[in-house]
Amino acid sequence: MPKPRIVILGGGFGGLYTARALRREFGDGAEIELVTAENYFVFQPLLPEVGAGSVTPIHATSPFRFLLKHVRVRKAIVDSVDFDAKTVTVFQGVQRRPTEISYDHLVIALGQVVDLSRTPGLAPHALTMKSLEDARRLRGHVIERLEHADITNLPEVKRGALTFTVIGGGFSGIETVGEMAELIDRSLKYYPNVSRDEIRIIVLEFADKILAEMPDTLRAYAQKQLEKRGVEIRLNTGIASATGTQITTTAGDLIDTRTVVATIGNAPAPVVARMDLPLTQGRIAVARDLSVPDRGNVWSLGDCALIPMKDGAEARGDFAPPTAQFAVREAKQLAANIARAARAEATRPFAYTSKGAMASLGARRGVADVMGVRLTGFLAWLLWRAYYVAFLPGFPAKVWVLSHWVLDWVTPRSLVNLKSHTPPAARHIHYRAGDRIYEQGNRADGFYTVIEGAVEITTETPQPGQPASRRVGPGGHFGERMVLGATRRVATARAAEDTIVMVLDREEFMKLADAIPPFRSYFEDHLTEKGLDWPETAGRSNAAE
Amino acid sequence: MPKPRIVILGGGFGGLYTARALRREFGDGAEIELVTAENYFVFQPLLPEVGAGSVTPIHATSPFRFLLKHVRVRKAIVDSVDFDAKTVTVFQGVQRRPTEISYDHLVIALGQVVDLSRTPGLAPHALTMKSLEDARRLRGHVIERLEHADITNLPEVKRGALTFTVIGGGFSGIETVGEMAELIDRSLKYYPNVSRDEIRIIVLEFADKILAEMPDTLRAYAQKQLEKRGVEIRLNTGIASATGTQITTTAGDLIDTRTVVATIGNAPAPVVARMDLPLTQGRIAVARDLSVPDRGNVWSLGDCALIPMKDGAEARGDFAPPTAQFAVREAKQLAANIARAARAEATRPFAYTSKGAMASLGARRGVADVMGVRLTGFLAWLLWRAYYVAFLPGFPAKVWVLSHWVLDWVTPRSLVNLKSHTPPAARHIHYRAGDRIYEQGNRADGFYTVIEGAVEITTETPQPGQPASRRVGPGGHFGERMVLGATRRVATARAAEDTIVMVLDREEFMKLADAIPPFRSYFEDHLTEKGLDWPETAGRSNAAE
Repeated sequence: MPKPRIVILGGGFGGLYTARALRREFGDGAEIELVTAENYFVFQPLLPEVGAGSVTPIHATSPFRFLLKHVRVRKAIVDSVDFDAKTVTVFQGVQRRPTEISYDHLVIALGQVVDLSRTPGLAPHALTMKSLEDARRLRGHVIERLEHADITNLPEVKRGALTFTVIGGGFSGIETVGEMAELIDRSLKYYPNVSRDEIRIIVLEFADKILAEMPDTLRAYAQKQLEKRGVEIRLNTGIASATGTQITTTAGDLIDTRTVVATIGNAPAPVVARMDLPLTQGRIAVARDLSVPDRGNVWSLGDCALIPMKDGAEARGDFAPPTAQFAVREAKQLAANIARAARAEATRPFAYTSKGAMASLGARRGVADVMGVRLTGFLAWLLWRAYYVAFLPGFPAKVWVLSHWVLDWVTPRSLVNLKSHTPPAARHIHYRAGDRIYEQGNRADGFYTVIEGAVEITTETPQPGQPASRRVGPGGHFGERMVLGATRRVATARAAEDTIVMVLDREEFMKLADAIPPFRSYFEDHLTEKGLDWPETAGRSNAAE
Repeated sequence: MPKPRIVILGGGFGGLYTARALRREFGDGAEIELVTAENYFVFQPLLPEVGAGSVTPIHATSPFRFLLKHVRVRKAIVDSVDFDAKTVTVFQGVQRRPTEISYDHLVIALGQVVDLSRTPGLAPHALTMKSLEDARRLRGHVIERLEHADITNLPEVKRGALTFTVIGGGFSGIETVGEMAELIDRSLKYYPNVSRDEIRIIVLEFADKILAEMPDTLRAYAQKQLEKRGVEIRLNTGIASATGTQITTTAGDLIDTRTVVATIGNAPAPVVARMDLPLTQGRIAVARDLSVPDRGNVWSLGDCALIPMKDGAEARGDFAPPTAQFAVREAKQLAANIARAARAEATRPFAYTSKGAMASLGARRGVADVMGVRLTGFLAWLLWRAYYVAFLPGFPAKVWVLSHWVLDWVTPRSLVNLKSHTPPAARHIHYRAGDRIYEQGNRADGFYTVIEGAVEITTETPQPGQPASRRVGPGGHFGERMVLGATRRVATARAAEDTIVMVLDREEFMKLADAIPPFRSYFEDHLTEKGLDWPETAGRSNAAE
């Protein structure tokens, strides 16, 4: 009999631990392959620490090739599954060639994605805390705000730069805000023009409590601790809309803030949504043994699966929570069930009772509720760290994280701000009515088109025969004078209504104009109407500044 | 008398050490400000180690705020200098507002930039080793090639992925190739489908020797060491052209390679070129006391300055070499001369004799020529490390780098491949005649326009009434069917001549179509001609995969 081929899609807690458990179940008796978009396992509980710089991104992770010695690791993007032919199509490499992988058993562990589209302006303007990139980006973003606050002469700019907002008071939101407050507090002495009382750190939580899964006493401690360290916690308050400079809460308050971290909003991964699978609440409805009904040897676990903990769970909402603790247990049961199925034995339902929960609050404080024992403060924080370093898969990762923690006690937290995120060349920006988009004299580095709303352009120095002010509506554009090599704005642009614009940076605009003749001729005509010539030198340019 | 205001532009070795030396010269008697595009000092000699992952990027650097306690640090981009009004205009913050800074003395220490534009195809397809981002990107790029080589079934793809090329056999090129070879050798055991003899590592050097500044015996040792470790060194050979998959050497050889690291090609920073300054050989021609003639209290040092070491140096080419060792000495002299000028004393010419040179070859081998003593092998390597850790400014950075080096001995080199670089949404790609651009069935994720040359599009499955093949010339486009949501290519595209295309990713194309009506209507008309409709659902999409 040929070895069964077992393919696992996704390398989160569910995927990694399934691969390891399958290897233990089958030894050399199966071909096991893990398909993953990234070549490393992200230890999610450490993301807030990465976001605050106490652990560097590379060391909060382990390469799958260290963790999975006899499992094939394929770095590729899943395109589709043919459940009848029992094949997965993936795209791999620079050329994105399609490759077909056949399976006898398929495990879907693709997690969920963040979806902020229900709140106007939130998707383009919020930071998220789902991936390692997100955490790295948050750290850079916070440091950048401190750098700017230290040198700006404009009070309203300073206020926005020094207001940090976290949306969601669950584990992710609370750990993120606690660590972020620690990073800021430890760094302030290096910013002589910023004082602590200029800083605001705010958590918005739509429910009436933070850390809803925790016992009341621990929640109360966490809230008091954070408030003592200057974190404002607003309960019963969600986010209604966001721009690049402000948010509006569901209570109607406006908050000037340049930092919005959204820890809310889950949705199925697009590739899962595209598969022909029964979704309930955006998750794959599996049977109690973690098999997907009627798809033949297909299984699912982790955040992408809706796992009934009892028969008839659908009616009572009695499902496994989407936590690492559960995913690891699910992985063991799933691997055992595949082994049983391979031996033509009956599978068994997944059963597990939570052993508790822990949260770090930053600044060496935490809360822990473990097997009935409740701890707060330094001890809870130490337990949190000890537990997670023990849980962290891979010996090198443990060594590195421990070293980081030790060195973090004896050295200042680094303020090096690497560019962790290149903003896309074309991006959407939301403005509220009255917001300034740019001012006469600002550096001209973008071209704007209006998608929704209207923009008022006014100049103190109108060209002869041109009006001092004009209004630009949907489909209209402004700021195109930068193609002439202007480095300064010759007019001020303000949102006349709530407005969405697309901004294109200069290099991208010039590349498009250079490569796509109708694009260029349209804007050339437009400049001609204004009595301006497209410059000879505005051609292809790779000049870097 | 008011305190003199001294403004330093640029935070490389020249800028940082000038700021420190000025502080020592003046104490509280001057206002000193450093203007820098990044908030951290990059210790350039460690870049090859960052590129090979033995030191993480954050820890090869120090935040200026740690290094400069009584110096104002301004993270901003220099726009221009008005030498008459004695002001510098910078852009800072998200809004890019212009800010004017006045000075009594100005120090220009803006270094040089990489310019690869003289070699066709090199700029869009080569990696560089100038900045921390470059080094980080190289590490990710090398790991990505190993990941792909391990899973591809296509021999020609594997060959290109496993060929690594470094252009330039100076210090930067040799240290980079040595460290890269070490990273690859140490990592191979985790890639079961890649064997050592499939790997090629090549250095191209246009001169007849590597490490030209070193004594002959050390050069010979370095070359032998690298060759023993499988590095091919091609002397008297430069690069003639590059594409994404191949390079052509000046000897006419074609090399299939997906990795080209260019350590050649310097040019003045655009902001320096824009200033009204006397440039010689692309550098600011300063007097022997490091002052810029006829600009009034303007000084320059480091890579951006051409510093005569003797009177009449212009005739004999007797200038200070652009090395860290010299920049640090120049900084001391420059600061002393500003202090002398402030006291109305005569300034003194810069004079210094090199103390020697060292190079790491990776794998615990090096060469060193220090004050007449010549060392090779392990001892030279150890001396290299000891010297640089002593030289590394900032105590925390020393602690971290040492810790990294110790842990690197006891743990495997991490293979975590973080996305350090988001490719621009619109980018140029060079192809040689005959190169495949994409194949029928490939994932459709980009839209192409032809800038130079011609592309042949052929399909095995022509639409009724459409030809099986067409040729697209400059200004023409192909691959636009992806707007219809096609995920696979329906035709194969090949370069019919040497060709430059611009490729635009799908998300960017859809954003532009959504925001710029003439852009959309042009492509809508074009699809209509082909009998295809622009889809209702192809509107604004923020969906992330």
